[in-house]
Amino acid sequence: MTVKIAILSGDGIGPEIVAEAIKVIGCLRKHYGFQVELEEAQIGGAAVDTSGEPLPEATLRLARQADAILLGAVGGPKWETLERRRRPEQGLLAIRSALGLFGNLRPAILYAELAGASTLRPEIVADLDILIVRELTGGIYFGEPRGVRTSGTGEREAYNTLLYRESEIVRIARLAFEIAGKRDARLCSVDKANVLESSGLWREVVTQLSGEYPQVELSHLYVDNAAMQLVRAPKQFDVIVTGNLFGDILSDCAAMLTGSIGMLPSAALDERGKGMYEPVHGSAPDIAGRDVANPLATILSLAMMLRYSLNQAVLAERVESAVRCVLAEGYRTADIHTAGTRRVGTREMGEAVTAAL
Amino acid sequence: MTVKIAILSGDGIGPEIVAEAIKVIGCLRKHYGFQVELEEAQIGGAAVDTSGEPLPEATLRLARQADAILLGAVGGPKWETLERRRRPEQGLLAIRSALGLFGNLRPAILYAELAGASTLRPEIVADLDILIVRELTGGIYFGEPRGVRTSGTGEREAYNTLLYRESEIVRIARLAFEIAGKRDARLCSVDKANVLESSGLWREVVTQLSGEYPQVELSHLYVDNAAMQLVRAPKQFDVIVTGNLFGDILSDCAAMLTGSIGMLPSAALDERGKGMYEPVHGSAPDIAGRDVANPLATILSLAMMLRYSLNQAVLAERVESAVRCVLAEGYRTADIHTAGTRRVGTREMGEAVTAAL
Ligand SMILES: CC(C)[C@H](C(=O)O)[C@@H](O)C(=O)O
Ligand SMILES: CC(C)[C@H](C(=O)O)[C@@H](O)C(=O)O
Repeated sequence: MTVKIAILSGDGIGPEIVAEAIKVIGCLRKHYGFQVELEEAQIGGAAVDTSGEPLPEATLRLARQADAILLGAVGGPKWETLERRRRPEQGLLAIRSALGLFGNLRPAILYAELAGASTLRPEIVADLDILIVRELTGGIYFGEPRGVRTSGTGEREAYNTLLYRESEIVRIARLAFEIAGKRDARLCSVDKANVLESSGLWREVVTQLSGEYPQVELSHLYVDNAAMQLVRAPKQFDVIVTGNLFGDILSDCAAMLTGSIGMLPSAALDERGKGMYEPVHGSAPDIAGRDVANPLATILSLAMMLRYSLNQAVLAERVESAVRCVLAEGYRTADIHTAGTRRVGTREMGEAVTAAL
Repeated sequence: MTVKIAILSGDGIGPEIVAEAIKVIGCLRKHYGFQVELEEAQIGGAAVDTSGEPLPEATLRLARQADAILLGAVGGPKWETLERRRRPEQGLLAIRSALGLFGNLRPAILYAELAGASTLRPEIVADLDILIVRELTGGIYFGEPRGVRTSGTGEREAYNTLLYRESEIVRIARLAFEIAGKRDARLCSVDKANVLESSGLWREVVTQLSGEYPQVELSHLYVDNAAMQLVRAPKQFDVIVTGNLFGDILSDCAAMLTGSIGMLPSAALDERGKGMYEPVHGSAPDIAGRDVANPLATILSLAMMLRYSLNQAVLAERVESAVRCVLAEGYRTADIHTAGTRRVGTREMGEAVTAAL
């Protein structure tokens, strides 16, 4: 059976890093019998430039048809002054919502070889391996009503709504419990239940669902404390589950603990396991087109795709091993380069991975 | 002129650490002619136990009359199962709101002697000195409507409202610009304007106000990026201004960068500079009553009170110097103790400060 992957390269370094992941796909096809078909479409600023919309209808159609989506990155200064609904990141929010990609998996892994890249003391972060499960299609990102209006006193006021329904909480918590059950079986739910009603319901529903997962140890933290604990002792965590906004903040914080966000992949899954995969880092317009970006986060996103959407766990492990292998061999792009290792460009890194494969 | 300070010790270690700050006040009265009157009242769990309310009417009355308020800490497992409106932290939210304490100053300072306490590499955090200015009486903490209801589909949904009015944004931003102007004149405003309308207005209003402060350099960051930058390179910041919820998360993250939150004071100011002062750390029920808590954050909160509410900058500096002095002499409570320094209890630390004064 041939699987179809939609390729959305996006902006900035997106096209370069996705090109290296495509080489890896080519290698899997050639040497491992991986039957795959790729189709490209535009998203973000690139799409705005050609069609005026950050998520053109044709792109959404392709994304719906595909078995999985590989995304590079979107955004850049060029489009920052556009009205909100035309900005590149609106394409990202729109595709998440349209495809129901509610389950965002954001691993924060520190490869032993890269411990020196972290701003934290090595003993605090060495071998860090935590997973943040972020709710991605609800909460304050999408809650209505929202807008700007004139208040009774004649001044402007702007407002957003943070809303969670029971079923939305159950859905993301179930995903997190399932994944935690396959890891170290410890799940920490993060909310602000001491202040917010929406968090109160979140905590209640997660706690209730935990009855179905007796083998998973559930704990709760307030979001402020969670941010502290990530800095104080990140290895205390296995899986963290949280809402859209808290997940946005905590996953970036956790990613930066590793010091090497050029290495971190992510997945956004729908209810049937179809997903969109993208590096955690952004479009880095300052280094775009210069063959210096790190393609490993995108290649590792492809590995996540093989595991979570394409049922190809063996191939996923091969890709991940190949990445470990090039790190062990000393290959480093500029972002993770240190004395005594071999500095390479985007293309050479991608080729090293395919060679290792 | 005699100033009146309301003393709200609260729960857990609150009474012990406040007792040491009171000793410092006594010393200022005796040796520096500081004319002061103290009056105590209950808040938090202690107040719930005696009156059933986390913020009794009498406490609020005293707080209104006083020139400044010194708070210990509130909360503990004993009260966690109470209905929300009786929980200790509701007393804190209520007093902030009732007194209009909109301006929360949360310094994150790392004393050179304590650099070893941080989980970050010394070169990343040594001599860190940043100030987070958090809006404290608005945003999603207080926005209406809020609650739990049954949705059209028959399930429960819970919601909160994040709302900011122009005047609220101007007020907190002005405070931040004023303070930044007296520091390194760099102000970073943190929001999520790429997703939230409330943040869009925030950014617009702050940007507009910056015209009145040409000497202060204004920058903007999205909250997820701010969390990353705090971990990556915290010394890039001077003053950060942000809303209630983002400030809650980022200030705790910044506090933990220092590794010594037992050292960090905070202030919550109203429009005329009257304020409530409290340590950043919590009530630590696990170590309450055992003479091990660090009283320095509370003593440094007193110093902030002298500076910001009581117009006694000279006395504030004396108290801060006394704290630096005891650190230099090697006194350490358990939370900041390392080999080669002198481990002392809560009382001995307080006495060392008064002796240094
Ligand atoms: C670009 C932005 C809208 C997006 C988000 O906030 O979700 C990004 O920060 C992310 O985390 O993927
Ligand atoms: C106790 C809680 C309500 C409070 C807050 O969220 O404001 C605390 O975390 C703080 O930061 O002072």
